Amino acid sequence: MMQHVSYGGCRVGVSGAHLKITGARFSLTPMSDDFINIILGAIKKVDLSNVWAKTDHTSTVYRGGSAEVFDALKACFLFSYRPGIHSALEATISKGCPGDVDDDTVLSFEGMRVNESAGQAVQFPVIGKFSVYPMGSGEYMHLIETLVNRGIDRGIVSGTGHYVTFLGGDVHDVFSYLEEVFHILDEEVSHFVIQVTLLCNVPEGEADE
Amino acid sequence: MMQHVSYGGCRVGVSGAHLKITGARFSLTPMSDDFINIILGAIKKVDLSNVWAKTDHTSTVYRGGSAEVFDALKACFLFSYRPGIHSALEATISKGCPGDVDDDTVLSFEGMRVNESAGQAVQFPVIGKFSVYPMGSGEYMHLIETLVNRGIDRGIVSGTGHYVTFLGGDVHDVFSYLEEVFHILDEEVSHFVIQVTLLCNVPEGEADE
Repeated sequence: MMQHVSYGGCRVGVSGAHLKITGARFSLTPMSDDFINIILGAIKKVDLSNVWAKTDHTSTVYRGGSAEVFDALKACFLFSYRPGIHSALEATISKGCPGDVDDDTVLSFEGMRVNESAGQAVQFPVIGKFSVYPMGSGEYMHLIETLVNRGIDRGIVSGTGHYVTFLGGDVHDVFSYLEEVFHILDEEVSHFVIQVTLLCNVPEGEADE
Repeated sequence: MMQHVSYGGCRVGVSGAHLKITGARFSLTPMSDDFINIILGAIKKVDLSNVWAKTDHTSTVYRGGSAEVFDALKACFLFSYRPGIHSALEATISKGCPGDVDDDTVLSFEGMRVNESAGQAVQFPVIGKFSVYPMGSGEYMHLIETLVNRGIDRGIVSGTGHYVTFLGGDVHDVFSYLEEVFHILDEEVSHFVIQVTLLCNVPEGEADE
């Protein structure tokens, strides 16, 4: 049995890491008999020069600067795309956890997007859902309102439902919006999480409900 | 384009719903060419007498009493099980959102588990990961510590990683633990979210890393 954990020394409102580490933990779930080749092929194709990466039995984590992490995350989803294969990306994007540590990261946060050119040719529509969790603050509903309305203005947010906001559009435009959401949250709260699911090749199509 | 949303009237620390509505929004992603039959077959088999349910293009929502929602959620995952088919359940379990409403729910919260007997024969091991988000409070890290250590004592929590806690075991035992996590959170915070992913028939096996 593992030892008990202790988070008692964490100071809420202060990131446990002094470096500005952004993290994304994600899973690809291609709904195909060929899922192993699709997942491993995508993971291997991502240029990980500028992020720390680890894959375990449940998911993959990238950590580093926010531009580098978004670049690698988008690339992995793009590289997993197969025409006609329905697939989901589920990702937890997080920054500032009081329990975080200055470890498991690269040290260069220069905004490099080393996968951008390789991914540009891959374009497809997605639909999905996301939620944001600004932690440790009582002022989170107004912040969520701001983010959602920004997505409506951009034509990415397509509706709201219980517990989530729906979004959709070209995959690059959706990632661009999610990165804007990240930066708006980053200016307002010390610790926050974006939980997102994106779907491609949806049997019912990618039009709004 | 949709109209802007307004969450400005929400009072943080007070559920928007007066009824004690628990909700689960979830997706099944069987990594198989036969995913449509597996998903729709499971969804149709769940007895929805005691929950409000809606399936859209991204996911399914159940709302009602906590016992009823956990019963229906577990049943849907159990009914989607196929020997040898790798599959994921991704679920957002939530209660007390300041933006919630007394709508889209059943009115009887009597703790009925109408799917329990049909699901009991289905047993399989799972591995997975979960995170909890106690909202609107600065005291969340100690609460998370308590929940994780309870899972270690039960033999369900198998490790910790960036942004998540890993868990695994018999699928029924794992759901029993998640429901305990829900009740511990329910006593401590007005609004909270449990984000969980469970995997079955993992190619690498369900043993700990």
